[in-house]
Amino acid sequence: MPEDKNKTVEKKELKEKIEKAGARLGLLERQARESKIPILITFDGFEAAGKGLQINRLIQFMDPRGFDVYTADKDDESDRMHPFLWRFARKAPADGRITIFDTSWYRHVQRDFFDGLTKDRELNDAYDDIRAFEQQLVDGGVVLIKLFLSITKKEQKKRFEKLVGSKETAWRVRKEDWDRNSRYEMYDDISKNMISRTHTKAAPWLIIDANKKDQAALEIIEVVSDRLEAALAEKKRGKIPGVYDAPVPPDRYKKGALSRVDLGKTLSRDEYKEKLDKLQKKIEKLHSELYRLRIPVVLCFEGWDAAGKGGAIKRLTSHLDPRGYKVCPTPAPNDVEKVHHYLWRFWNHVPKDGHIAIYDRTWYGRVMVERIEGFCSEDDWRRAYQEINDFESHLVHHGAVVLKFWIDIDKDEQERRFNDRMKNPEKQWKITDEDWRNREKWDQYEEAVNEMIERTSTEQAPWIIVEGNSKYYARVKVLKTVVKALEDKIKEVEKTKKEYE
Amino acid sequence: MPEDKNKTVEKKELKEKIEKAGARLGLLERQARESKIPILITFDGFEAAGKGLQINRLIQFMDPRGFDVYTADKDDESDRMHPFLWRFARKAPADGRITIFDTSWYRHVQRDFFDGLTKDRELNDAYDDIRAFEQQLVDGGVVLIKLFLSITKKEQKKRFEKLVGSKETAWRVRKEDWDRNSRYEMYDDISKNMISRTHTKAAPWLIIDANKKDQAALEIIEVVSDRLEAALAEKKRGKIPGVYDAPVPPDRYKKGALSRVDLGKTLSRDEYKEKLDKLQKKIEKLHSELYRLRIPVVLCFEGWDAAGKGGAIKRLTSHLDPRGYKVCPTPAPNDVEKVHHYLWRFWNHVPKDGHIAIYDRTWYGRVMVERIEGFCSEDDWRRAYQEINDFESHLVHHGAVVLKFWIDIDKDEQERRFNDRMKNPEKQWKITDEDWRNREKWDQYEEAVNEMIERTSTEQAPWIIVEGNSKYYARVKVLKTVVKALEDKIKEVEKTKKEYE
Repeated sequence: MPEDKNKTVEKKELKEKIEKAGARLGLLERQARESKIPILITFDGFEAAGKGLQINRLIQFMDPRGFDVYTADKDDESDRMHPFLWRFARKAPADGRITIFDTSWYRHVQRDFFDGLTKDRELNDAYDDIRAFEQQLVDGGVVLIKLFLSITKKEQKKRFEKLVGSKETAWRVRKEDWDRNSRYEMYDDISKNMISRTHTKAAPWLIIDANKKDQAALEIIEVVSDRLEAALAEKKRGKIPGVYDAPVPPDRYKKGALSRVDLGKTLSRDEYKEKLDKLQKKIEKLHSELYRLRIPVVLCFEGWDAAGKGGAIKRLTSHLDPRGYKVCPTPAPNDVEKVHHYLWRFWNHVPKDGHIAIYDRTWYGRVMVERIEGFCSEDDWRRAYQEINDFESHLVHHGAVVLKFWIDIDKDEQERRFNDRMKNPEKQWKITDEDWRNREKWDQYEEAVNEMIERTSTEQAPWIIVEGNSKYYARVKVLKTVVKALEDKIKEVEKTKKEYE
Repeated sequence: MPEDKNKTVEKKELKEKIEKAGARLGLLERQARESKIPILITFDGFEAAGKGLQINRLIQFMDPRGFDVYTADKDDESDRMHPFLWRFARKAPADGRITIFDTSWYRHVQRDFFDGLTKDRELNDAYDDIRAFEQQLVDGGVVLIKLFLSITKKEQKKRFEKLVGSKETAWRVRKEDWDRNSRYEMYDDISKNMISRTHTKAAPWLIIDANKKDQAALEIIEVVSDRLEAALAEKKRGKIPGVYDAPVPPDRYKKGALSRVDLGKTLSRDEYKEKLDKLQKKIEKLHSELYRLRIPVVLCFEGWDAAGKGGAIKRLTSHLDPRGYKVCPTPAPNDVEKVHHYLWRFWNHVPKDGHIAIYDRTWYGRVMVERIEGFCSEDDWRRAYQEINDFESHLVHHGAVVLKFWIDIDKDEQERRFNDRMKNPEKQWKITDEDWRNREKWDQYEEAVNEMIERTSTEQAPWIIVEGNSKYYARVKVLKTVVKALEDKIKEVEKTKKEYE
C-alpha cells in the first residue's frame, strides 16, 4: 500500500475512533449532570499547543447548555486587584455543571513566572495556595481534571510561523510568544517544576502530547471520559469518608479561650465618647492610606446573638468613605450558594486591593451552626479548620490584613438583652424564636467556639476576643485593634516598598 | 446675640434636626426592607459636590447589612466593553435591598459628554435608553431616587483648593477637574439639559443645594425618607394598575405569523452536509472578524418543545472558538433571580464586545410561559413588549447584532418527536410530563407567539421564523441568516470606521 493511502486509512480510522469516544463522553456527561457532579477541566501547556482547538473538539460532544468556557489568558484590572485564585474560585462549577478554563491558575506560576510578573519570593506561597485550593475543590466533590498540552520547540515554531503567514491570524502571535519559543528550554523547565510540585493524589496532572492534533483530541476525550466514569462509580458506591483528624478526647474543648475572658471590663460614657471620636478620626485617615497603598482588608465578626456585632460594625464604619468598604451580611444560603462549595459565597466578596470587606458572620458558620445543627457532615466540618486556614493564608499572601473578632458576652447578659428587645417595640424585629432556641445550645456552641479559636487563630489571621458585656468597651476595643493592625501593615508595606525600589 | 453665638446655636439645632430625621429614616428603611421594597438611590452632580460625604451621612442611619454602595466614577475594561447601562442593571437592588450609586448612568450623558467620550450622535439614543431603563425599574417596583448635588463655581473652586492644600488629598484633584471648574458654565448647561430631558413622572430629579454640607445632609435624609414613606403607603394601599395598552379585540392574534409558515420546506441529506460545511467555515472566519472589530452578537432561540433548538445551536457553534461565545440556558429562575426584575438574569449574560451570546430560551418567556401560566400579572406581560423592545434597542445602540429565531413545527411533528423520545432510551431524559402538558395549551401558545412576533419584530432586532419540520432545512436557515447578518454588520462597521477616521 502506498504511504499516502496508508495515511488516509489511518486518518479515517482515527476519525471513527473520535466519534465513538465522543458518543461515550456525551453519555457520561449527561449522567454526571444528572448525578449533580461538578466538573472542572483546566487546559494549560505551551503557547500554540492548541488549547482552543482542543477545547472545541471536546465540547462538541457535550450539551452546550451544560458547560462554561472561560479564558484566563489575560487579566483585567479587577483580576489584578484580587488574589490570583479569586477569579477562578468564583467560577468553580455548581453541582451538575462543567467549567472549562483555557489557561488556569497555573499561569501564575508558569508564564507569569517566566515573564517575571510573579517574583521568586512569591513562588512558594503560590504553590501552597494552589495545592490547598485544589484539595478543597476535590474534597468538596469537584472532579478536577488538569490537562497539560505539550508540543516540541520545533512544532511550536512551525505553528507560530503558520499563524503569522495568514493575514487573519498574524495578530495572534506577539513578541512575547517568539521569546517563549526561543527560550523554550527554560519554559519547559519551569513547566516541569510546576507539574512535579502540583501532581497530587487529589489532583493529578494529565500530560497530553499535542503535536498531533487528532491524536491529542482522542486522548483528551478518552481521559476526560475515564475520569467521569470513575467519578460516577464513586458517587454510586459512596465515597469512603476521609479521616482528617486524630480523634479529639471528649470534653477537650469544654474549657478553652472563652473560659478565660474577663467580662468585667468596662468603659464610662465619657471615656467612650472621647476614645471613639479619636479612633474614628484615625481610621478615616488610615482608610485613605490603605487605598493609596492598595492594601485589602478583611474584617470578620462573629459572636453570640445580641453580642453587639451590628453596633460595633456601625461605629467602625461611620467615618469611612462608603466607596471603600462593604459590609457583607451572611444570611442562610440561597439556592445558588447551596450548590457551590461553602467558601464560594465568601470568595464573591473578597475585597479589591485598597478596599475593606466587613463580614457580618463568616465562613466560620461551617464549624459553628453547620456543625451543631448537622447541616454538614462531621468530616466536612473537621476538614474545614484546615480549609479555612488555607483560604485566609491565600488572602494574606496576597497582602491582605485579616482580623477576626469574637464578641463575647455571658449568658445572663444575653438574657437581659433578649428581654430588652422583646419589651422594646422598636427592637422587637431583632429577636426571633430561633434566637431563643440557639440559646438553649449555649454549651455546645461554647465548645465549638473554643475549638474554632484554638485551631484557626494564626499569627497572620488572629482571633481577637472582645469582652462585650460593656458595649462601650467592646466597640472601642474593636476600633483600637483595627487601627493598630492597619498602622502596622502600612508601615510594613512602606518598608517593603523601599527595599524593592 | 453676637453672630458667632448665633451660628453655634444654629449648628446645634441643625444637628438635632439631622438626628431626628435620621431616626425617622432608620425606621422607614427597616419597614421598606420588611415590605421587600427594592430601593435605588443615585448621587450625581458637580465634581466636589460632596457625593461621598453625603452618602456616608445618609447611610449612618441605615442598617449596614441592608445596602450596597457602588462607585461608577471610573470604568474598567469590562464596563467599557458592554452597553453603558449594563453595569448598573446588574447591580439593581433585589427586593428589600438598597443600592446606592455614587455617580450613576448619568455620567454617560453628563461628564463623558463634556469630556467628548460620548459623541453628539450618540446622545439621543442614550437618553432614550435611560428613560426606558428607569421606567422599567420603576414599573418593576423599584423606588428610584435620583439626587443631583449642585454647588456654585466658586464653592467648587474652594473645595478643589482645599483638597490640593493637604498632602493626603492632593492626588484626588486631577487636571480634568480644574478644566471642569474653568468651564463650569458649559458643564452646568449640559447638566441642566440632562435634567430636563430625564425629569419624568416615573423618575423625577431632586436637586440638592450642596453648598452647605449640613443643610444638604438634612435635605437628603428628608427627601429619601419622604419617598420611602410614600412607597410604603402605596404598597399598603395596593398599586393602581397601569394601563399600558389599548384593549385587544378577542381572537385578534388567533391567526398571525405562525399561520403563514410553510412547513413543507425541506433539504436532502447531501445538500445539508454540503451547505452546512460551507456555512460553518464561513462563520468561523466571521467570528474572528467580530472579535477584531469588537462587535457583540446576541442570538435568541425560542420555539415549540422538541422543535430542535438544541440541534440548531449545536451546528451553529461547532466551528466557533469556545472562548468567544457562550450558550446561556434559561431554566426556571432561582431564588436570586426571583427577587430581581425579570430582565436582570439576562443582563448578566449580555455579551462583551466581540463575543457571541446565544440564549436558549430568553426574556420572551415573560410573554409566553409566564403569561399563559399566570406567573405574572396581565399588566406585567402587556408592559413587557415595550420593555423588551427597549432592552434590545439598548443593545443595538451599543452596536450589537440582535437576531431572534422562532423554530416552528406543527403539532403532528411534535407528537412524532415526543413519541420518538419516549421510545428511545437515550432520549428519554429529554421528555417530561410538563412537555405533554404544554402541548395541551398549543392554541394559547400560538396566540401568544403571534402577538409576540407582531409586537417585537423590529427592524433592528427581527424575528426570523424557521420552518423546522425538516431539521436539515432549519439548521441551514439559521446558519445562513446569522452569516448574512454578520456580514452586513461587518461591512457597516468597516464603513463607519472609515467615515470617522
